[in-house]
Amino acid sequence: MNSFTPTDRSRVKRLHERGEYDEAAVFAILDAGMIAHIAYIIDGQPYVTPTAYWREGRRLYWHGSSASRMLRSQAKGLPVCFTVTHLDGMVMARSGFHHSINYRSVMAFGTASIVDDPAVKLRHLDRFVERLFPGRNGDVRASTAQELKGTTMVSMEIDEASAKHRVGPPKDDDEDYALDCWAGVIPVAQIVGAPIGDPKLKAGVGFPDGLKGFAAGARLDAVLTAHAKRQTGSEK
Amino acid sequence: MNSFTPTDRSRVKRLHERGEYDEAAVFAILDAGMIAHIAYIIDGQPYVTPTAYWREGRRLYWHGSSASRMLRSQAKGLPVCFTVTHLDGMVMARSGFHHSINYRSVMAFGTASIVDDPAVKLRHLDRFVERLFPGRNGDVRASTAQELKGTTMVSMEIDEASAKHRVGPPKDDDEDYALDCWAGVIPVAQIVGAPIGDPKLKAGVGFPDGLKGFAAGARLDAVLTAHAKRQTGSEK
Repeated sequence: MNSFTPTDRSRVKRLHERGEYDEAAVFAILDAGMIAHIAYIIDGQPYVTPTAYWREGRRLYWHGSSASRMLRSQAKGLPVCFTVTHLDGMVMARSGFHHSINYRSVMAFGTASIVDDPAVKLRHLDRFVERLFPGRNGDVRASTAQELKGTTMVSMEIDEASAKHRVGPPKDDDEDYALDCWAGVIPVAQIVGAPIGDPKLKAGVGFPDGLKGFAAGARLDAVLTAHAKRQTGSEK
Repeated sequence: MNSFTPTDRSRVKRLHERGEYDEAAVFAILDAGMIAHIAYIIDGQPYVTPTAYWREGRRLYWHGSSASRMLRSQAKGLPVCFTVTHLDGMVMARSGFHHSINYRSVMAFGTASIVDDPAVKLRHLDRFVERLFPGRNGDVRASTAQELKGTTMVSMEIDEASAKHRVGPPKDDDEDYALDCWAGVIPVAQIVGAPIGDPKLKAGVGFPDGLKGFAAGARLDAVLTAHAKRQTGSEK
């Protein structure tokens, strides 16, 4: 099993039984998500920006406008902390103290730097689209040179990462189980809704087969995981 | 209208028509959420940690174990960036370039510091529980002195904040509307599931009235907003 080697930076200190460092645990949480929160420093001030991302092996990618302050700063080679979190439920215990949250999260560390070769950029943009939306590249018009130029892409090799999660019912103090207090979990998940066609949609254009995983009522994490597996599988 | 005054730190530079600085816009996004991503610096390294939070006026609160490295560092008075993000949908355009995300997010800046008076801490812990879970303090057993001691609470006055959001259909280049390409929005929301009673739940204890807002199928952001309004309203 391939693992990340924790140092003081990534080692899970609190409730360390919840910490995992193997690639499978880290990648599963990353591949189930679409939005990361990325922390970085400009002039001594910490910032954290939500952004869409994709993964290839141990390397993470994100992108945006070339006018973005975040990307312009990160392009120069900046240490970042890259966190993905899934909220899975509210854990209702018999004391306020033992209330908790069911979640899965990854904290990954590395140095961001720019991807500036246009061919490499284009290949990764296509991978990003396909990773989220299978078949989509065949439906949309191709990127223009101008669009590529206006897009800054940043990537980061994961130097260290840890995965944390909590699952299951509350853990109460022994004597509290006798209380007349409801306890349990109220689950939460990101759920896909029914697609809303663009008001300007050309007549006769149907919802594409490749996007049918995004069925109304589906869990977004499950759809994204399936799409990521599909992409990785098709390259083997 | 009360507004936050943006400086270079919080002013929305990209697509600045999406940026808002008034309290109503900032508070609406904060009150609809439960998990923030908080960025901070330890020894020159940026970190971003997901954590539950609550708000009172312009002040944000979060808490955790007194053994937490994040909280021990922040307790000393540390500049932080506090970000809350709601993912609302995937925006499918007719070109890869115009694909986008519907979202609401707030980025707030301030200096974190410890809340160390036990009476103040206790009052805020109670407020936190009631804000998320109305009536819950009447059901659970009271906190012990030991539990209070084991809990570190941190708060931050919002010095600056900006809200950003995107809503609605894709915006494509004029000539692309003629393409035979499906376009529109695939909505995403955090949805509440049916409560799962603790396997050790005492016989005869029913699901409490105060939590009935968390109905299976409800939007978490709507429930949290209603609970926050209820708390604020009951204090007026």
